[in-house]
Amino acid sequence: MNLLIINGPNLNLLGQREEQIYGKQTFAEYLIELKNRTSAKIDFFQSNHEGEIIDALQKSNHDGIILNAGGYTHTSVAIRDCIKAIKTSVVEVHISNITAREEFRHTSLISPVVEGCIFGFGLKSYDLAIKFFESKN
Amino acid sequence: MNLLIINGPNLNLLGQREEQIYGKQTFAEYLIELKNRTSAKIDFFQSNHEGEIIDALQKSNHDGIILNAGGYTHTSVAIRDCIKAIKTSVVEVHISNITAREEFRHTSLISPVVEGCIFGFGLKSYDLAIKFFESKN
Amino acid sequence: MNLLIINGPNLNLLGQREEQIYGKQTFAEYLIELKNRTSAKIDFFQSNHEGEIIDALQKSNHDGIILNAGGYTHTSVAIRDCIKAIKTSVVEVHISNITAREEFRHTSLISPVVEGCIFGFGLKSYDLAIKFFESKN
Amino acid sequence: MNLLIINGPNLNLLGQREEQIYGKQTFAEYLIELKNRTSAKIDFFQSNHEGEIIDALQKSNHDGIILNAGGYTHTSVAIRDCIKAIKTSVVEVHISNITAREEFRHTSLISPVVEGCIFGFGLKSYDLAIKFFESKN
Amino acid sequence: MNLLIINGPNLNLLGQREEQIYGKQTFAEYLIELKNRTSAKIDFFQSNHEGEIIDALQKSNHDGIILNAGGYTHTSVAIRDCIKAIKTSVVEVHISNITAREEFRHTSLISPVVEGCIFGFGLKSYDLAIKFFESKN
Amino acid sequence: MNLLIINGPNLNLLGQREEQIYGKQTFAEYLIELKNRTSAKIDFFQSNHEGEIIDALQKSNHDGIILNAGGYTHTSVAIRDCIKAIKTSVVEVHISNITAREEFRHTSLISPVVEGCIFGFGLKSYDLAIKFFESKN
Amino acid sequence: MNLLIINGPNLNLLGQREEQIYGKQTFAEYLIELKNRTSAKIDFFQSNHEGEIIDALQKSNHDGIILNAGGYTHTSVAIRDCIKAIKTSVVEVHISNITAREEFRHTSLISPVVEGCIFGFGLKSYDLAIKFFESKN
Amino acid sequence: MNLLIINGPNLNLLGQREEQIYGKQTFAEYLIELKNRTSAKIDFFQSNHEGEIIDALQKSNHDGIILNAGGYTHTSVAIRDCIKAIKTSVVEVHISNITAREEFRHTSLISPVVEGCIFGFGLKSYDLAIKFFESKN
Amino acid sequence: MNLLIINGPNLNLLGQREEQIYGKQTFAEYLIELKNRTSAKIDFFQSNHEGEIIDALQKSNHDGIILNAGGYTHTSVAIRDCIKAIKTSVVEVHISNITAREEFRHTSLISPVVEGCIFGFGLKSYDLAIKFFESKN
Amino acid sequence: MNLLIINGPNLNLLGQREEQIYGKQTFAEYLIELKNRTSAKIDFFQSNHEGEIIDALQKSNHDGIILNAGGYTHTSVAIRDCIKAIKTSVVEVHISNITAREEFRHTSLISPVVEGCIFGFGLKSYDLAIKFFESKN
Amino acid sequence: MNLLIINGPNLNLLGQREEQIYGKQTFAEYLIELKNRTSAKIDFFQSNHEGEIIDALQKSNHDGIILNAGGYTHTSVAIRDCIKAIKTSVVEVHISNITAREEFRHTSLISPVVEGCIFGFGLKSYDLAIKFFESKN
Amino acid sequence: MNLLIINGPNLNLLGQREEQIYGKQTFAEYLIELKNRTSAKIDFFQSNHEGEIIDALQKSNHDGIILNAGGYTHTSVAIRDCIKAIKTSVVEVHISNITAREEFRHTSLISPVVEGCIFGFGLKSYDLAIKFFESKN
Repeated sequence: MNLLIINGPNLNLLGQREEQIYGKQTFAEYLIELKNRTSAKIDFFQSNHEGEIIDALQKSNHDGIILNAGGYTHTSVAIRDCIKAIKTSVVEVHISNITAREEFRHTSLISPVVEGCIFGFGLKSYDLAIKFFESKN
Repeated sequence: MNLLIINGPNLNLLGQREEQIYGKQTFAEYLIELKNRTSAKIDFFQSNHEGEIIDALQKSNHDGIILNAGGYTHTSVAIRDCIKAIKTSVVEVHISNITAREEFRHTSLISPVVEGCIFGFGLKSYDLAIKFFESKN
Repeated sequence: MNLLIINGPNLNLLGQREEQIYGKQTFAEYLIELKNRTSAKIDFFQSNHEGEIIDALQKSNHDGIILNAGGYTHTSVAIRDCIKAIKTSVVEVHISNITAREEFRHTSLISPVVEGCIFGFGLKSYDLAIKFFESKN
Repeated sequence: MNLLIINGPNLNLLGQREEQIYGKQTFAEYLIELKNRTSAKIDFFQSNHEGEIIDALQKSNHDGIILNAGGYTHTSVAIRDCIKAIKTSVVEVHISNITAREEFRHTSLISPVVEGCIFGFGLKSYDLAIKFFESKN
Repeated sequence: MNLLIINGPNLNLLGQREEQIYGKQTFAEYLIELKNRTSAKIDFFQSNHEGEIIDALQKSNHDGIILNAGGYTHTSVAIRDCIKAIKTSVVEVHISNITAREEFRHTSLISPVVEGCIFGFGLKSYDLAIKFFESKN
Repeated sequence: MNLLIINGPNLNLLGQREEQIYGKQTFAEYLIELKNRTSAKIDFFQSNHEGEIIDALQKSNHDGIILNAGGYTHTSVAIRDCIKAIKTSVVEVHISNITAREEFRHTSLISPVVEGCIFGFGLKSYDLAIKFFESKN
Repeated sequence: MNLLIINGPNLNLLGQREEQIYGKQTFAEYLIELKNRTSAKIDFFQSNHEGEIIDALQKSNHDGIILNAGGYTHTSVAIRDCIKAIKTSVVEVHISNITAREEFRHTSLISPVVEGCIFGFGLKSYDLAIKFFESKN
Repeated sequence: MNLLIINGPNLNLLGQREEQIYGKQTFAEYLIELKNRTSAKIDFFQSNHEGEIIDALQKSNHDGIILNAGGYTHTSVAIRDCIKAIKTSVVEVHISNITAREEFRHTSLISPVVEGCIFGFGLKSYDLAIKFFESKN
Repeated sequence: MNLLIINGPNLNLLGQREEQIYGKQTFAEYLIELKNRTSAKIDFFQSNHEGEIIDALQKSNHDGIILNAGGYTHTSVAIRDCIKAIKTSVVEVHISNITAREEFRHTSLISPVVEGCIFGFGLKSYDLAIKFFESKN
Repeated sequence: MNLLIINGPNLNLLGQREEQIYGKQTFAEYLIELKNRTSAKIDFFQSNHEGEIIDALQKSNHDGIILNAGGYTHTSVAIRDCIKAIKTSVVEVHISNITAREEFRHTSLISPVVEGCIFGFGLKSYDLAIKFFESKN
Repeated sequence: MNLLIINGPNLNLLGQREEQIYGKQTFAEYLIELKNRTSAKIDFFQSNHEGEIIDALQKSNHDGIILNAGGYTHTSVAIRDCIKAIKTSVVEVHISNITAREEFRHTSLISPVVEGCIFGFGLKSYDLAIKFFESKN
Repeated sequence: MNLLIINGPNLNLLGQREEQIYGKQTFAEYLIELKNRTSAKIDFFQSNHEGEIIDALQKSNHDGIILNAGGYTHTSVAIRDCIKAIKTSVVEVHISNITAREEFRHTSLISPVVEGCIFGFGLKSYDLAIKFFESKN
């Protein structure tokens, strides 16, 4: 099984950005640990560009995609349309509990079109998404 | 580690209710399988009564609670207050993707006060919540 | 044919509560008259507890249910879910014309999931619901 | 006792319009059956014109009016004013459960000024309205 | 100077409809008095039909129109469009103080396109409108 | 008969402020003309201070008050309360058609508690208000 | 192929009404030109009456209908219901770009039930609608 | 004089729940002090169950009721209906200043039907309510 | 202990204004009684001017302030800012139950920044506020 | 005459994405047919990147642009600003009837600034846009 | 060049009010520094009274006005009207970043009618406004 | 001191786009003048791509950033998140008074996270932002 993790805007700053919300670990460090905990092959892509995320979603031929769309979660009809258009199963994750933050973060345009949502568990949200894909086999 | 699963109203009808949304398996059948997949001790409580769910949350001395509050998810300030008042960590789960259903199911009064949320994975949502508690040790 | 009438919170006070809206007759008095006007067997249940109303709906094996959910009409997603989950046909009744009262009484969470609605005819609303079930045979 | 049934716009198409919602029977066929089931004298008027419905309401000297205002239910302040202005008792009926359809059909401008409302029972909604008027004698 | 008074739906019931709001005088009685108080020639038209009011507005070649659109005040974009399209000056009148009644009567679609508005003075609202046209000469 | 005209904030700038909306005549010039057209005794008060307008309303012992509250029309609950508290009849006037201007000018807090409203006739709105008080004798 | 053009309220004033929005040509003049540009047979109906537009829609046995409902576009549930009820394909047209005008013109009750919408091209909107019907053959 | 204090959901956790909002004293400790400060006989009832609170309100034959409905304050039409239906005077109290907390706590369904409201004074809110009942004698 | 009572606009009319809501007693009469019931020194200030109320709040060096801001309760950000800026504790009182009156009276801009709120007890609301300050010693 | 067609995000998936809405034909196949039906020179550009669409709009020196902005239709103020800033005439097209789909697709930020809109005709929407440009010559 | 600084309600408390938002410096201290940094003549006026601010705006014959309307920023239509009515250029300043505070501070009634806005720079906001006026010469 | 100016979409068209709002000067011309007026080193970046603006913000190691995000001001949660994540101080500028334009331009997602905002002064808005950074030294 091969999986793709897509991280949206500003998630490349993890470990240095608003540590009280996102923690101190960089995603690169976390990714090494994560790969050790799973037998799945994990590809990784990060971009601050909405269009590049759509391109990545369209080109993916993985068994599943784990998407943290960052700030585009709340504004991108285009990413939503893309998820509906592709056949790969997508799981939405967030590091923080988005429902406990600013009002405009409570609504995700993406949630209604993904297979499932996991948020609030810190970086472990990614782990749980991988557990889900593993359990499908 | 001992965990408590609390199921809210109508979840006792699982397997016979709106099968296209909730699937055909009863929760009793699922619970047996679930216990086999974890070393944690799982207690289980179901009630159609908002007050009994609050009582159960208050009395729990488990290491974690997995709560599917059913219809009370969207209307109960009292359950929300209870979760804030107790010290046990609570994870919110839903079988279906509530953001893809009726408008009034998109807002959860409970989400902002729990540790994390998992929804849309069918009964596997419970599995993932248990994985999370296991990973905390 | 056997039917179940379920009355929600405060309807046990009928005859002494806000007489200009609900009239002077107690429901017990009315029920005797009602039974005389129909050949159907009528069971009756009243509760101020949301959970007990859900329990009663789930346990019913009648040919039809006449539900006046009182104040829970406007707030209970759980009762709504229950009506969708059970197979028995439910008719919603109200004594007063709820659309002519306070704003928050104009929306019923229950109406969209019942077979039909009857309101504003005083206690005769129950009579009409029974007429409907009689006409189905 | 003589009663007047007023049907609003497009109800003349009954039996050929959106059969999954309104059924296959024409109103003319139904009216014959209905008259057989009651000793009341039934007059009938249908119009696609809001003004003609107001004229008919004003001119009526019946013991009661059964009004299905169709699409004007949700938009006509003028029909609402008319019902308040005349002395004849009006009962509002709808064939379908309007609360289970599009958002804009959930609010009736007419409901707050009629004696009572009956909807969702198919053409039997009219039968029940007649039962109500019969029970007043 | 010749003027046209147009009365909308249900204003033909004046004197018998909701007397606590509209008073006891019929419009016919009032019209005789009104004509005695002015040197202007007064034509009068009443209709319950939105389309006929539009026709009357379009065909008018008077020096001014006094319009009480009744219930259409709050719902008719078509009458609004008509007033903008014709060249005759229109004054909007209402017998009652519409801002002190139900919420849906607070907004007039017509007010933004007329020359001026007069409401709340009982039937004297029509007198004041005529005074305005007299003062233009 | 003696009447009081109260003008609210910025109406002292009339004739120099936004001439396309309010015209070129000062209120002082207009007031001289107005007094010539009526046998009523006219007192006049202008203030930019909300509190002074309330004081003036409270102290008035005139037969009627003509109030143009200017910008306070849309924000002052205190002036509204004052009008309800005093016994003198108040007529609200505006020079411009407030419903054809910015959204926040469409709602008047004052309208629901006055006897009647006149707006959109330029300075003639004051004339019409005086006509109304004259016609009450 | 025979087509029906239905024009709603005030469109009979074209060429004399708000020329900066609707242009100077009358619809009669335009219709002559239009017929020359197509081999389809074009019938034409205009009315200021909502009910007559519904009657016309119901009675039509054309291959297609081009509807400019004018002011009823934004208020008529009855016309919407009629379009859903009939089997003829309807195309909605507007002369002006309704989304660039007043707020209340941005929502069309009719758009969701027609085959397609064309607006903003001046009278050419009708031409394009006819092109569409021609291309279906 | 005998009074009944009713505490709603989670108020049994007082002293251990969110101390920065509710303080460190348990209600049992406070109740002893409170009884020492008044000559009135004080009964006390706490429940997490909405239905039990309604039952308690209905059965009370005290001279007055002091109600802190906790989380049900903002969601329970049924408790509101009950207060209107019973004849005993009810005073609403809250420990914290609910208007300074989350948005959904700003609206109380109960306030409009009680005699008076007291909130924000910590546990002294109960003292003040008792002072009010004492002053009625 | 010395306290300051500040009454806002129109409260000087107490005893003659809307007696069914505010009662027949003047505030001067009530103040004499109130002073007899407390050992605290009571200063009193009333104004119809928003700015004067702010001045009074700023200049106060009392042990506590009891503020009934009247109509400014619902509109004055400036008074709210002032209460936050000064160090004296402020208690908000209202004679009537503001939540049971017009919609625009349900929201108080002042409540979120005061120590506590008391309303609905008639003039006794002031008594209870004084009781609170007395209990702080 | 040379024209530019710009397709926004996910429209490159046409023919494989949600076929019940968008049909089975790829845009490449359609484009060949389209070019055969017109004498105009057609350039074509597709991008999933909002910024690239803006770049393309700015650089265009065609006689007209046909824009299907896909998901950016509902979220892009920047594309709207670009259309206003350039001098080339833009026509907005959509394949599906966007007003008959999800709520958030009913509002187009682009519509108010384009020359005209065409939607709901399948791929023929593009044909009609080209017909419009042809008719301008 | 002579300029007028107008400070609204509670800004006289600067240096002692909510220091975490407004800083510790009094405005008098700041004003001395400010005057040293500019060759413009600076007049200064502060009032807690809305009406006095309007009077000051009307009477000003300066080359420019710098207005910090404090709490009236969000509620005063009268100050807005005044700014539109006078000919002097007005620049709006705020010490804090009002968009980062409570919801009701996000909207300024004044911003749409001033020449420009500067906020969030602490007392330096006034400096920048003066820089702007200096740069106009 | 070195500063970075970032201009968002369509600002490269300055001098040719909507001149009545933005003026006739190109930004290149203005930049030369601006550099002459300051001793700070000014870098400049313009892009129509949301992602490129985020990249630029992240990579900047300047002493301050002046950001005019153009149309992304109102829609980009991702740029907002970026500003919060980086440590450099950001000042938001706009050429026009955005509060005096279309409704959707009144809300800036960026304002709450920047140090301060300056808008409405034409290109001088940039000058003032630089003055602010200069004054920090």
